[in-house]
Amino acid sequence: MIIPLSQIIPLLSAQSLFLAEVGVGESYAKAVVSALLVTAGLVFLLSVLLGELFTRLKLPTVLGDLATGIVLGGSVLSILVFADVEQAANVAVLHFLEFATGSSGDTVMAAYQFQMREFIDDSATIGLLTLLFVTGLESDLEELIRVGPQAATVAVTGVFVPLVGGAIALITLFHVSPIPAIFAGAALTATSIGITANVLQEIGHLQSDEGQIILGAAILDDILGIVVLALTLSLVETGAIEPSTLIRLVISTAVFVLLAILLNRYFCPIFTRNIEKFDNPAALLLCSFAFLNVLALLAITLGLEALLGAFAAGLVLGGTSQKEKLMRLVQPFVFVYTTIFFVTIGASVNLSVLNPLVPENQEGLVIAGCLIVIAVVGKVIAGFAIFGDKPINRLAVGTGMIPRGEVGLVFAGLGASTGVLSESLDAAVLIMVVVTTLIAPILLRWVLPSGLEVLTPETAERLEEIEEAVGEKF
Amino acid sequence: MIIPLSQIIPLLSAQSLFLAEVGVGESYAKAVVSALLVTAGLVFLLSVLLGELFTRLKLPTVLGDLATGIVLGGSVLSILVFADVEQAANVAVLHFLEFATGSSGDTVMAAYQFQMREFIDDSATIGLLTLLFVTGLESDLEELIRVGPQAATVAVTGVFVPLVGGAIALITLFHVSPIPAIFAGAALTATSIGITANVLQEIGHLQSDEGQIILGAAILDDILGIVVLALTLSLVETGAIEPSTLIRLVISTAVFVLLAILLNRYFCPIFTRNIEKFDNPAALLLCSFAFLNVLALLAITLGLEALLGAFAAGLVLGGTSQKEKLMRLVQPFVFVYTTIFFVTIGASVNLSVLNPLVPENQEGLVIAGCLIVIAVVGKVIAGFAIFGDKPINRLAVGTGMIPRGEVGLVFAGLGASTGVLSESLDAAVLIMVVVTTLIAPILLRWVLPSGLEVLTPETAERLEEIEEAVGEKF
Repeated sequence: MIIPLSQIIPLLSAQSLFLAEVGVGESYAKAVVSALLVTAGLVFLLSVLLGELFTRLKLPTVLGDLATGIVLGGSVLSILVFADVEQAANVAVLHFLEFATGSSGDTVMAAYQFQMREFIDDSATIGLLTLLFVTGLESDLEELIRVGPQAATVAVTGVFVPLVGGAIALITLFHVSPIPAIFAGAALTATSIGITANVLQEIGHLQSDEGQIILGAAILDDILGIVVLALTLSLVETGAIEPSTLIRLVISTAVFVLLAILLNRYFCPIFTRNIEKFDNPAALLLCSFAFLNVLALLAITLGLEALLGAFAAGLVLGGTSQKEKLMRLVQPFVFVYTTIFFVTIGASVNLSVLNPLVPENQEGLVIAGCLIVIAVVGKVIAGFAIFGDKPINRLAVGTGMIPRGEVGLVFAGLGASTGVLSESLDAAVLIMVVVTTLIAPILLRWVLPSGLEVLTPETAERLEEIEEAVGEKF
Repeated sequence: MIIPLSQIIPLLSAQSLFLAEVGVGESYAKAVVSALLVTAGLVFLLSVLLGELFTRLKLPTVLGDLATGIVLGGSVLSILVFADVEQAANVAVLHFLEFATGSSGDTVMAAYQFQMREFIDDSATIGLLTLLFVTGLESDLEELIRVGPQAATVAVTGVFVPLVGGAIALITLFHVSPIPAIFAGAALTATSIGITANVLQEIGHLQSDEGQIILGAAILDDILGIVVLALTLSLVETGAIEPSTLIRLVISTAVFVLLAILLNRYFCPIFTRNIEKFDNPAALLLCSFAFLNVLALLAITLGLEALLGAFAAGLVLGGTSQKEKLMRLVQPFVFVYTTIFFVTIGASVNLSVLNPLVPENQEGLVIAGCLIVIAVVGKVIAGFAIFGDKPINRLAVGTGMIPRGEVGLVFAGLGASTGVLSESLDAAVLIMVVVTTLIAPILLRWVLPSGLEVLTPETAERLEEIEEAVGEKF
């Protein structure tokens, strides 16, 4: 059922008037604040505890956020419940809110549902933009150019093979229609730079040829992943794969990337020169966020995604002398908002589709297995795509590219929220992300014997930067 | 008109369904994100520029936020428009959103109004809680006890005289009913510690007896102001001044303060010991926010205000070894969210009530003049309340207490949002805050000749702490 907008606007007005009127007399406002405090408090606390559990098991912290979402989501406790308002919220929480605010059950229910949509949804959007902004800040343009053609070969092959392989497998083996198949294939493309850097550091291989190629490819990979995401999302929106659409999108993306490079070269010095003149210590953060907003709006206006703008803003500002300072200022937002973002992804997982005893679920699980194989094989092939005779452990390079992380989760989240992925396909993508993230550290230690390297100051510094930016979180 | 909740819930559900359905086909979601980007971007950019302007004029930066709100609010550009949905939003912004997202005017309008209520309102709440959390972090309990009885005398007198004087003057001279009169009187109570510390530093008087007493009194004053705020807000909600209500509130507040002191003594060591065990660098921030949420919920459950809980959480965590680290992590939230909070206060000001040529406005302006006199005289009397024969410049102490800042603005904001203050009374409170903040530096330089002191390392460090925490913002 689609309700026409002409009917929605009066509803919005009525609700707004209602909020204004009820403000003092009823404790509606208090119930809204309480609902915010309860849900956010539970998200923060549980994500820290589960994150710690996964860290102790030598697994990435981000798995703790996903687990938090699953526990608080509709599958288990029903504390984070979204668009599907028919789904009952946790009764214990509602009773607590009634007790705490002294409001009626109706008031609490309305406040709770309003707060769910309002706070959690908006925070997840902010989390996604912040995450891509930080990834951009980390991805030094000159570094990218220096890494050279080998990393580019690995990155391009590692994006192309899983995307095409995944889409074809889904279409031919499982009769998925083209758009969801391409979307799910695109979810297989991007390596998680945070997880990869972390593992390489642990086994002392950051400085080796293999380590350098993996790092460079992972950075390029992230950018390609975001471009692929922008392209596939636009395809989802226009609803068909038309050559003209593709060409328009490629041109828009090229214009945008070119603009980012030009801004990086010419805007950075101006920004740096002027931002230091402000006495206000908040100026750097606020101006940077305003810049992010401008580029995100530009991306939207060009028919691309807001998150590409956030990434470009990070890339441009990463070229200024304020990079380190900005990193420290944005870090707390990453802590809070990407946690909420990953938690909402976990919360949108319908655990029941994973039960192999239910016959309807078996297809989803088979698809997940197939996606995992393509995800692993695709990246291993990318490793062997390295040209030249240099004695490089090509298997190790491919293995280092296996973990999918933030961008894969972004696909899973957007696949669910836009409805382009069916429940079972979305669950399969999520399983793929989790499994590749879990097996990569084990496989990499296996194919790449531990190197007892001494870091050069340069590498150590670069590592510290990456660690600080992304590694801490994953 | 009050709409019963039974009618609201179906509206909420319908709207939610609508959002879910429309997600892909229409660009409603894109319009919502764009509206967020446009409004937040303008708020950030303009507040930096106007803040810089005020800083160059040697005035507190916070005045820039208020000015930003006035410029973007309903009085000038109509970009930030709130509860009153009948008020037209800025046409240029709506047209830009239509162009950028390629959506229809109806879609953009619905998205814009939804976003206004959603993002800006929620952010202002977060800003208020963050601000009080940081104020609590800064207010060292042991420092407060050490400052001694003289500061306490100044603080108590400086809260009591303006509160009672203001309320009585409003009731007798302007026939304001008791509750708004008490609310407006309460807005006269709290000195801005940020502005005061700043001025004392500039004239080299932080180390003098006068400076020490002013600082101590300003800290106590902030706590008393928050307690007074909690009491008056509860009075506004229950709607009558009954002795039993007052007694219950005083007991609740006492229980709460006692609990905060106990937590400070016994919970801090446990928190410090355990938080260091976490590998996850996000743990400190997330656990602190979760703790804030728990205390805020406790305050609500005791019938007090959420902000008292936020303040207590800051006070408790300020006693841990993590204080400095936490301060740095929370600072960026203060930069973003208290900016939004102060901007919304500015946006809710109806500039037209300040025009002295309109006869209906003249009463409001007369009230403002009266409040300013009471605000100044009340604090000067507080200075003369210091007992003993010590040669203290009592006039200077009183003058140092004159600037009202954050707490006064909180009263103005809540006065408008709860509707307890009439438009003219709310404008009068805001004028009082702005004028006392502007004249205090001038008066203080006048009554307290510049001291050419050399700071002891201890005072310098303490000053730096206060500076970093609150001073930067004001």
